[in-house]
Amino acid sequence: MRPSGRTSSQIRPITITRGFTKHAEGSVLIEFGETKVICTASANEGVPRFMKGKGEGWITAEYGMLPRSTHTRCDREAARGKQGGRTLEIQRLIGRALRAAVDLKALGENTITLDCDVIQADGGTRTASITGACVALVDALAHMRSKGILKTNPLKHMIAAISVGVYKGQVIADLEYLEDSDAETDMNVVMAENGKLIEVQGTAEGEPYSFEEMQEMMEYARLALKEIFDIQKAALA
Amino acid sequence: MRPSGRTSSQIRPITITRGFTKHAEGSVLIEFGETKVICTASANEGVPRFMKGKGEGWITAEYGMLPRSTHTRCDREAARGKQGGRTLEIQRLIGRALRAAVDLKALGENTITLDCDVIQADGGTRTASITGACVALVDALAHMRSKGILKTNPLKHMIAAISVGVYKGQVIADLEYLEDSDAETDMNVVMAENGKLIEVQGTAEGEPYSFEEMQEMMEYARLALKEIFDIQKAALA
Amino acid sequence: MRPSGRTSSQIRPITITRGFTKHAEGSVLIEFGETKVICTASANEGVPRFMKGKGEGWITAEYGMLPRSTHTRCDREAARGKQGGRTLEIQRLIGRALRAAVDLKALGENTITLDCDVIQADGGTRTASITGACVALVDALAHMRSKGILKTNPLKHMIAAISVGVYKGQVIADLEYLEDSDAETDMNVVMAENGKLIEVQGTAEGEPYSFEEMQEMMEYARLALKEIFDIQKAALA
Amino acid sequence: MRPSGRTSSQIRPITITRGFTKHAEGSVLIEFGETKVICTASANEGVPRFMKGKGEGWITAEYGMLPRSTHTRCDREAARGKQGGRTLEIQRLIGRALRAAVDLKALGENTITLDCDVIQADGGTRTASITGACVALVDALAHMRSKGILKTNPLKHMIAAISVGVYKGQVIADLEYLEDSDAETDMNVVMAENGKLIEVQGTAEGEPYSFEEMQEMMEYARLALKEIFDIQKAALA
Amino acid sequence: MRPSGRTSSQIRPITITRGFTKHAEGSVLIEFGETKVICTASANEGVPRFMKGKGEGWITAEYGMLPRSTHTRCDREAARGKQGGRTLEIQRLIGRALRAAVDLKALGENTITLDCDVIQADGGTRTASITGACVALVDALAHMRSKGILKTNPLKHMIAAISVGVYKGQVIADLEYLEDSDAETDMNVVMAENGKLIEVQGTAEGEPYSFEEMQEMMEYARLALKEIFDIQKAALA
Amino acid sequence: MRPSGRTSSQIRPITITRGFTKHAEGSVLIEFGETKVICTASANEGVPRFMKGKGEGWITAEYGMLPRSTHTRCDREAARGKQGGRTLEIQRLIGRALRAAVDLKALGENTITLDCDVIQADGGTRTASITGACVALVDALAHMRSKGILKTNPLKHMIAAISVGVYKGQVIADLEYLEDSDAETDMNVVMAENGKLIEVQGTAEGEPYSFEEMQEMMEYARLALKEIFDIQKAALA
Repeated sequence: MRPSGRTSSQIRPITITRGFTKHAEGSVLIEFGETKVICTASANEGVPRFMKGKGEGWITAEYGMLPRSTHTRCDREAARGKQGGRTLEIQRLIGRALRAAVDLKALGENTITLDCDVIQADGGTRTASITGACVALVDALAHMRSKGILKTNPLKHMIAAISVGVYKGQVIADLEYLEDSDAETDMNVVMAENGKLIEVQGTAEGEPYSFEEMQEMMEYARLALKEIFDIQKAALA
Repeated sequence: MRPSGRTSSQIRPITITRGFTKHAEGSVLIEFGETKVICTASANEGVPRFMKGKGEGWITAEYGMLPRSTHTRCDREAARGKQGGRTLEIQRLIGRALRAAVDLKALGENTITLDCDVIQADGGTRTASITGACVALVDALAHMRSKGILKTNPLKHMIAAISVGVYKGQVIADLEYLEDSDAETDMNVVMAENGKLIEVQGTAEGEPYSFEEMQEMMEYARLALKEIFDIQKAALA
Repeated sequence: MRPSGRTSSQIRPITITRGFTKHAEGSVLIEFGETKVICTASANEGVPRFMKGKGEGWITAEYGMLPRSTHTRCDREAARGKQGGRTLEIQRLIGRALRAAVDLKALGENTITLDCDVIQADGGTRTASITGACVALVDALAHMRSKGILKTNPLKHMIAAISVGVYKGQVIADLEYLEDSDAETDMNVVMAENGKLIEVQGTAEGEPYSFEEMQEMMEYARLALKEIFDIQKAALA
Repeated sequence: MRPSGRTSSQIRPITITRGFTKHAEGSVLIEFGETKVICTASANEGVPRFMKGKGEGWITAEYGMLPRSTHTRCDREAARGKQGGRTLEIQRLIGRALRAAVDLKALGENTITLDCDVIQADGGTRTASITGACVALVDALAHMRSKGILKTNPLKHMIAAISVGVYKGQVIADLEYLEDSDAETDMNVVMAENGKLIEVQGTAEGEPYSFEEMQEMMEYARLALKEIFDIQKAALA
Repeated sequence: MRPSGRTSSQIRPITITRGFTKHAEGSVLIEFGETKVICTASANEGVPRFMKGKGEGWITAEYGMLPRSTHTRCDREAARGKQGGRTLEIQRLIGRALRAAVDLKALGENTITLDCDVIQADGGTRTASITGACVALVDALAHMRSKGILKTNPLKHMIAAISVGVYKGQVIADLEYLEDSDAETDMNVVMAENGKLIEVQGTAEGEPYSFEEMQEMMEYARLALKEIFDIQKAALA
Repeated sequence: MRPSGRTSSQIRPITITRGFTKHAEGSVLIEFGETKVICTASANEGVPRFMKGKGEGWITAEYGMLPRSTHTRCDREAARGKQGGRTLEIQRLIGRALRAAVDLKALGENTITLDCDVIQADGGTRTASITGACVALVDALAHMRSKGILKTNPLKHMIAAISVGVYKGQVIADLEYLEDSDAETDMNVVMAENGKLIEVQGTAEGEPYSFEEMQEMMEYARLALKEIFDIQKAALA
């Protein structure tokens, strides 16, 4: 039933390449099948104004797509002069998710910026971004500890994300573009490695969905994320 | 336990005033306790460029807060020169939710713009906006039918929204500002009157939440929304 | 002759509702007939950079119209990304007018921001804004004195505003939309309660006007403003 | 009493240089004493969207100051990314004033843009702009007639403008910068050559002004403008 | 003398990977040593407004750097709301250079957009961009011919670019970041494969340079570009 | 062969009027034939943030064209809300060129801003701007020395600029608009009075140019600039 021939719960091959670019404290190329995102973590001293004087750190994220990461070229947001609503929504989600992975007190007055730049899009760019950014974050934290900036590891738990949905009446995991653009429901789930939830966003694109479908989607997400946490761990080993 | 003395599942008094301003095809003042939002529905011929030639209509939404709707004055977005990420996120949510209420084919090539302007904020402005906008939409559709613009009623079902959350370890419904700013988890649920889901957005602000808490929040939302659909119906009677 | 049947010098019913929203130090709903404006006064410590170190305070104003306050929906300025020339012109006028009401030295290094948001427009929104903002200002000053922020009352005198004009060859007061859009001349007069002038802006929309017409308009304004000062006083009693 | 030794009603020497730059249909350098403004009139076929199909023309204006036209360098508005409120207010005034000089029907579906660029500022830039722009407009209309674009002269009457004010308790005409920055009241008067009024804008910068002072200012303006109309005529002879 | 131990005329290893991303008509990853740029060519029907009706095509370029392509993170231009002067200057250069490679008449009314996105910067990003974009352009033209959009090959000649400069008093080729940030003179040369010049931009960052140094730099550029044209050809073979 | 009848190496008459406006520390009107640019130099205490604490000064430039300096009116950049790529490119060039004229250490922590505003354009506006700005800079430095702000003269050497090009197959100097818009190659050369080069920018607008043509253009530039340095000196005498 799925264009790729995958079973309903089967996720795409995921590869995580650490040290993808040389300047960033953490730099990861993450691939969910044909979706490819460069996630870098940049560590800087100091925090934004609204956090000053609390003795806590800050994690923030920015997201972008190269204009031709998509089937037809989309506008360059820098040239248009503003980031669109979808971009802002995604980067707010990434930032929130990663903040939930870290003990901000233990981070001290430092800021880590996660840049997620999609170089090829085929569905699931935001979940790939979150999953890859967490690995880049771990590398940046290790770098900060090696420099003596941090004394303890502020990471509370790994986090990862997956999309699930209802497609042709069937719950599926890890939607690729062809499925995503045609799905009745699209749900993104961000989870901590202890199995607890950080963010759930489920949207009926066409018909509303039932509580039963929601539960099935959650179950698919739980299974997929178990796999993904293993892939993250293997990459960090 | 709640600052207002409400029980955990108790929502605030909701009032819906139709015909609140005189120019709009639909105009509603909705109050969820101290949260007050003016929702207007403006009907116009034609559709945006990306919808042209499909023979379908379009529903879109814009959201704003008066600068002093909040405890301390917030910047006027028009003066700052752009809408913030939170504003864009909320107005995208409102638009998506209301589009799910309408058969766009039956709407013909007409656009309805829902403006949700918060004049006083005390938590739950997005859920109040969606709930009020649906009533304004119904009035605008009736107006269009009375003018002969529409031959049938494009409304598929009423929709409404409520926030639920985990506050001091306890699931509660319809968070007011004091609760919202202190909650561990905040979840917004948009539902159709047939009990199916249109949008679920659950965010761990502090600690991640369990699947069990999620189910309990969903149950609270289901109960609250049953009440709210009755209030909408009474207002439209 | 007038669409409403009013006599040439007759103003519309004016109502002033204090304490309209709960967060602002001063909050007024002012209605000039069908024109309705929410005026809030927000008091803050400190002054803008260009006023620092003078030991004086600052009064500023911002003006906006809800998109559907008008007959046909107008663009939301926050979405367009800038305030239009008309908006800037009006908020500069409101700010100047209210500064003329206050002894800035007695205000100390505090700023009061007057937000005038039109929820329904039917002509005369700028004069209603000024008249309502002055009442909101008085409430904010009283609040500041009750908090011990101010020791004396910085108010020098009440101010109020009215529009007058030449319509179908006849001088009239307090133009509503139908008259305003068709008037030959439109003049806005801001006056202090001692009868002295703060601002006069008279514009020939069609034919130029004579000195005699100008004097007659000024006389109509003087009479109307006498009434309006009484309405302000009654509201503040 | 005046810094320049002028009598209270005495205006500065005014010179009008036509054909100041070579590309524009009308190009004037106008000098009010040390205030120097380049006014060009550019004629183009067609009208803005909101005027289309009415068979009428349009007159619009833009105003700017070179960054170092003032005592201390002011920001370049193009670099800051927006025109300030003062600029928008002035260019709206110039546009309105010049539209009042022309029979838009006789102009046909043509647009004339008046650019007023201040190269040296010493008070009265907006009144110099209006006065100079009218001469540039006359030249552009003559150019259009010579090209056969216009069959009749759409000019209804010359217009001109002057500032008057109350300075150290005394009414004066044509304020230069030192007076303007210190005046109690500042009033700009735009008049048609038949003595009728197009725009009056009087602002109390400090103390409110009386009706008597207003009348005296109007009288000063009338006298000054009589002289200025003669200077315009001489320049056009 | 050079940080890398290269001889003065030695360029870095250059690798060109075609088909780097899957959606674009032409997609190239080009590496000049540690400088890595993704160059995509997107073909679209139609031309910008100013080219309409001439029967000619258009080539344009956009340039960007990922925020952490550099040593310290630079602002994301999309978030700042505008492209900086350096970015605009570079993308104008790339567009001009590539237009010189193509017979716009033979391209018909089609537009090719070249996006050059730097994922890792180590000096010479603009010359790498031009060199890579030309290969992506060739692939896009081939794609258009295979689709029957083009009947002939509009390519007039390959183009390529290299930086040369004066560093510690010595002329060198292909400056890397350490050299670039310290060079007395920096010159970028764009050449056609027939040895003629398309663009020369030489800037004294510190001391002015002599005519003799200029000639020596031009000679270094000529030699380096001969090599680079071979690398392009090999990549396209 | 040239529209003006000039010989191929002949430059237009150049006039330099110092003290053109009264407020700036240096103010020059420079004319290259019909091209007229006002160049002002504004001296201010302090330096931009990125230069703070180095004990050095800063020179920066801004460039603009009056909307009707050109044959057909171009948009006012302040109204469009941003400076175009061409403007940014030119003002970056002017700033770089003038910084090369000054010993920034000797300037102390002061900033000089050079505003070049084109009031009439006929080709060569950027070279006229650089040439005129250098004279304005000299006047501003003299002013700063007379005020005791500077103890020594930070000027290292005069600089000037000229355009050369290939027009109808022939190298020419100082292109006017008719030539510029039709030239095969356009090259701008900025030189110090000692004959060394500060900036060379040569662009093939149509056909690429040969090394021989480049050398001939450089020779034409050298001859023209010798004349121009004499004109600058005469103006400063």
